[in-house]
Amino acid sequence: MTISNIESFVVGRWVAPGEGAREIENAVTGAVIARAGNDALDAAAMLEHARRKGGAALRAMTFHQRAGMIKALALALNEKKQALYDLSFASGGTQADHMIDIDGGIGTLFVFASKGRREMPNGHVYLDGDTEQLGKAGTFLGQHVCTPLQGAAVHINAFNFPVWGMLEKLAPTLLAGMPVIVKPATATCYVTELAVRIMLDADVLPEGALQLVTGGLGDTLDRLTCQDVVSFTGSADTALKLRSAPNLLQNSVRFMAEQDSLNASILGPDVTPGTPEFDLFVKEVHREMTAKAGQKCTAVRRIIAPLAQVDAVIGALSDRLAKTVIGDPKAEGTRMGALVSNSQKRDVLSKAALIGAEAERVFGDPDNFAVNGADANAGAFVPPMLFHCADPDAALRVHDTEAFGPVSTVMGYRDLDHAIALANRGEGSLVASVITHDPQVARAVVLGAGAFHGRLYFNDRVSMKESTGHGSPMPHMVHGGPGRAGGGEELGGIRGAMHYMQRTAIQGSPDMLTAIGETWVPGSTQSAPEAHPFTRTFENLQLGDTLTTASREVSLEDIETFANFTGDTFYAHMDQAAAERNPFFPGRVAHGYLLISFAAGLFVEPAEGPVLANSGLENLRFLKPVEPGDSIKVELTVKKKTPRNTEYGEVRWHVSMTNQADELVAVYDLLTMNAYGT
Amino acid sequence: MTISNIESFVVGRWVAPGEGAREIENAVTGAVIARAGNDALDAAAMLEHARRKGGAALRAMTFHQRAGMIKALALALNEKKQALYDLSFASGGTQADHMIDIDGGIGTLFVFASKGRREMPNGHVYLDGDTEQLGKAGTFLGQHVCTPLQGAAVHINAFNFPVWGMLEKLAPTLLAGMPVIVKPATATCYVTELAVRIMLDADVLPEGALQLVTGGLGDTLDRLTCQDVVSFTGSADTALKLRSAPNLLQNSVRFMAEQDSLNASILGPDVTPGTPEFDLFVKEVHREMTAKAGQKCTAVRRIIAPLAQVDAVIGALSDRLAKTVIGDPKAEGTRMGALVSNSQKRDVLSKAALIGAEAERVFGDPDNFAVNGADANAGAFVPPMLFHCADPDAALRVHDTEAFGPVSTVMGYRDLDHAIALANRGEGSLVASVITHDPQVARAVVLGAGAFHGRLYFNDRVSMKESTGHGSPMPHMVHGGPGRAGGGEELGGIRGAMHYMQRTAIQGSPDMLTAIGETWVPGSTQSAPEAHPFTRTFENLQLGDTLTTASREVSLEDIETFANFTGDTFYAHMDQAAAERNPFFPGRVAHGYLLISFAAGLFVEPAEGPVLANSGLENLRFLKPVEPGDSIKVELTVKKKTPRNTEYGEVRWHVSMTNQADELVAVYDLLTMNAYGT
Repeated sequence: MTISNIESFVVGRWVAPGEGAREIENAVTGAVIARAGNDALDAAAMLEHARRKGGAALRAMTFHQRAGMIKALALALNEKKQALYDLSFASGGTQADHMIDIDGGIGTLFVFASKGRREMPNGHVYLDGDTEQLGKAGTFLGQHVCTPLQGAAVHINAFNFPVWGMLEKLAPTLLAGMPVIVKPATATCYVTELAVRIMLDADVLPEGALQLVTGGLGDTLDRLTCQDVVSFTGSADTALKLRSAPNLLQNSVRFMAEQDSLNASILGPDVTPGTPEFDLFVKEVHREMTAKAGQKCTAVRRIIAPLAQVDAVIGALSDRLAKTVIGDPKAEGTRMGALVSNSQKRDVLSKAALIGAEAERVFGDPDNFAVNGADANAGAFVPPMLFHCADPDAALRVHDTEAFGPVSTVMGYRDLDHAIALANRGEGSLVASVITHDPQVARAVVLGAGAFHGRLYFNDRVSMKESTGHGSPMPHMVHGGPGRAGGGEELGGIRGAMHYMQRTAIQGSPDMLTAIGETWVPGSTQSAPEAHPFTRTFENLQLGDTLTTASREVSLEDIETFANFTGDTFYAHMDQAAAERNPFFPGRVAHGYLLISFAAGLFVEPAEGPVLANSGLENLRFLKPVEPGDSIKVELTVKKKTPRNTEYGEVRWHVSMTNQADELVAVYDLLTMNAYGT
Repeated sequence: MTISNIESFVVGRWVAPGEGAREIENAVTGAVIARAGNDALDAAAMLEHARRKGGAALRAMTFHQRAGMIKALALALNEKKQALYDLSFASGGTQADHMIDIDGGIGTLFVFASKGRREMPNGHVYLDGDTEQLGKAGTFLGQHVCTPLQGAAVHINAFNFPVWGMLEKLAPTLLAGMPVIVKPATATCYVTELAVRIMLDADVLPEGALQLVTGGLGDTLDRLTCQDVVSFTGSADTALKLRSAPNLLQNSVRFMAEQDSLNASILGPDVTPGTPEFDLFVKEVHREMTAKAGQKCTAVRRIIAPLAQVDAVIGALSDRLAKTVIGDPKAEGTRMGALVSNSQKRDVLSKAALIGAEAERVFGDPDNFAVNGADANAGAFVPPMLFHCADPDAALRVHDTEAFGPVSTVMGYRDLDHAIALANRGEGSLVASVITHDPQVARAVVLGAGAFHGRLYFNDRVSMKESTGHGSPMPHMVHGGPGRAGGGEELGGIRGAMHYMQRTAIQGSPDMLTAIGETWVPGSTQSAPEAHPFTRTFENLQLGDTLTTASREVSLEDIETFANFTGDTFYAHMDQAAAERNPFFPGRVAHGYLLISFAAGLFVEPAEGPVLANSGLENLRFLKPVEPGDSIKVELTVKKKTPRNTEYGEVRWHVSMTNQADELVAVYDLLTMNAYGT
């Protein structure tokens, strides 16, 4: 049998294992299949390559360009995923497990590519929140912006998801504009290596944007500065060691940890056997115990059920577990494969023994279970083990000891407050789920337990068909949690990119903020080109281009015509005495809808041209009533331009409407789709 | 002379100094004036009091109620600020310095009170971002929410701002709903103690919401959990010691540090002597050197000027410094007082000596300077000292050594990239300022230096009248910075409250999210009470109350009537052939403004009633064109209620407009002001 050399990719070349390499075993057979690691790794050169080459190239791209690059990576991986599946069986997982890892990872790239294009600008500076007016006249404003850190992101990943684990960190980091050094766990680094090769072959990544270290990181962490980031997923012990590294503490180097935690699933007090929610609970808990043979940081470790339902839960779960065939993941009929290695198996059994001192094992015997199509003694097989803890208030280990395998403990609760208290005994988790059909139960859990959990997952008969699973971190949602879960955050859409950017508070005049944020800020310089802005193509419009319209009187007749035409005969427009009693109005006033309709009549250029459609309107505020006889005029200024495709882009216009005394009557953002010139 | 006993306030009672108390000196005379500290402090009881009593009471309040409480604290302090001024002179500061501390602190409370009311809900759960649809049918959604941590916030503050330093942390923490333990620096804790007494006397804080420890914290930090927070302001050395505390690392306890950093001020390459910007630069740098005798974490330590302007900058600054009278802050004519203590003076002089090894002292002689109205040898007086570093690229100490007093170093730069590189040599700062009249200079600095600085402050002739100062953290803007500045963040409006809340990703059905967030989510249950919702008072409207209107056909005549009435004769409405060429439209279509006007005609109840005004409209998107002959109808649902005052509140309505085929035509949020019943 050949032993593969798993290489690293450092400073633009592939480096074979060398001095200090470690052996990697096949989870199903126990045989050594590969080796990885090389003590001669030059961490200084690797970091310099990332910072100088990769970082500079990524920062030169816009957010949209980086989003496009991420999409290209997803497409390349998607095309070659069969090779990744094939290789993954050696890790002990089933085809269903591989899909969580590989398809889940690729899906994460697609979501970040899409969000990058839709939610970030086609520029280099991300605006965080609105401007803050810091003086009365508006000559000095504040604005928070985010720009990419200028160092390297070091990603230290866990063995259980060699592909997803890499991609869920890679996507937000590349989108932010930071180069990445990936260090996968050695046990499954052969899958990560192949995924990296596929991505490099796609030829869309700038040089230095992605490096791979299979094996140890050497003295990399001692060389990090305030511009670097360490993002870790794995055990609490390793996280503590890394977090305590003197150089990280000394230089306030950003460190994020996502640790395995004692995740709970709660059966709602409203749920009884025979309801859809009871079956759903059993199904979800079973899946979270057995997927990846329980080697998921989000797996359910504690099953919290009403005291009256404990026996029913144990019964239904045991029935389902009994039907779960364990064995070679390639063998017909296998539903749960092996743990990743025999050392992991020893660790799980020792942790299960600790739990066994406080809880009775009610299902699964590690000394007596069937294995389908493989040698039970050679591979890293364990059966699902279900425990029942009769006194969870007094117990300690069931709340703090994680057996990182198919091991979970049922505990009963008296009332919802007790259930919340038990869930919080985990002292911080990645996720807790609640199966309930009662929204008030959900609200009580959020108020009582929200502060202890990074994610709270509610499911019932309404959402069960579309629900994404207790254990699945979605790219849209934050993944991480307080305390035992490591105190970190990942994913969560654009939030995930923020960990790789610096938020800076900017203060200055409107013109400064306009130039910095590539978004026109009220008070900035306006220009008035001769041609009507609606006659100019997308690329020819400039921020600050302004149209000032003629003014138009709003007569009482206009108000009555509009009221009768639209049917909006609200008393403030039609009844002088009633309008006078209204605290906001001096008497009859024009409809807001009339004003913005007249405004369009004032600013629209009717002839066919590059403006394709009015797609929407935002942040409209009516600031001062318009009385019969008042006049209005409008200023329309190009505020922001966002390309949408090769044919057109979105133009955001700042619209301000004033009356004959130059008082602001209304402000809003108008959105139009504008064609490029051909 | 009497020596005051500065007390702590722990578990609801005032505790006098005892074993382990330390002496406090008057900065101006060097005499011992007070003592503080007591080794017998019971940290366990103090934490328990905060968590059980204070936390529970604060969490029972809404964000608006907590904002109201913060406003009451501001009013109480404002009324008694003279007593705070009087006491503050012993710290060495001038009246102008006291106002930065005391008025600045009170102003921060007011801003947080106002933002809490305007930007947070009158409820218990803060929604972070929009919902995320996680399935096609919309039965399973995501939403991020923030809820208060359930532990205690331990605030460890610096000596330089005994009032502002406490309040800038207190305001966001109380707004978030967490109880606070304040531990001021001993040197000026007598001022903090008085401010705490004033706030407690205001009788608006729940028991346990605020405790004070003057002197040491004992073993408090060893007792913290994942629900507690430590927020520190002070020196890098102390920050490192705290950050390395094993218990904090072990339990991932949130730790934020705001450390003194080597802040820079850059004179733009466009600025020459004789321009308003040159004078502004000299004025700002002078102020930042001498305010609080340079004892500000944001003070300018490095003055970065074009090589050609270095001599002019040194000359102009020296002229201004020469006119700065140093002495007893109470004495007539004094512009700069003493450092806080003689030990601080020794520290500043030793650091200035380190800088002096790399840079020439061009102004200020610590062995020879005049002191107004005080004994130069008894008080902690130093003169402003200006250095010039001729080779800042080779220098090390000028970029990493902070003399925490009126000490700053001028260095020349060749071009803007060089200036940015020098600013970044500080390896992370709280703030860098740039005096420039060129927006492109501002943009280049943000792209090149943003990642190294928590705040970038731009000023010129346009903004100088309203600008708030290089050294003034504004409550609206984030305060903190990467690397040497500690890696923390404070303030920044509502962002500042987030450090004391947990962000939790929520997943569930629309009804679950509606109950959790107190905001109606599309897809949730709707109810259709008999009475038109416009006839119901603010308090009687319920989330989900829905009006479904009749439908109305939109005819070609309607479109033409509207076009001619408003003047909006855009070709997509008027010209069939041109409209057909448009990629969005099948042919002539109705105006968006016509649709929302007709919608109002369909849903408005015309008679006088509790609806007072349509105040605005948000997030309008036109999703499908309406052709002549199509019909529209509207659904109007109560989405969110926000009280504004005792007379009325804002109602946010979700409006969805559909056509005859039940396809969505437009969606938006409508805002109205609705009266309470009487």
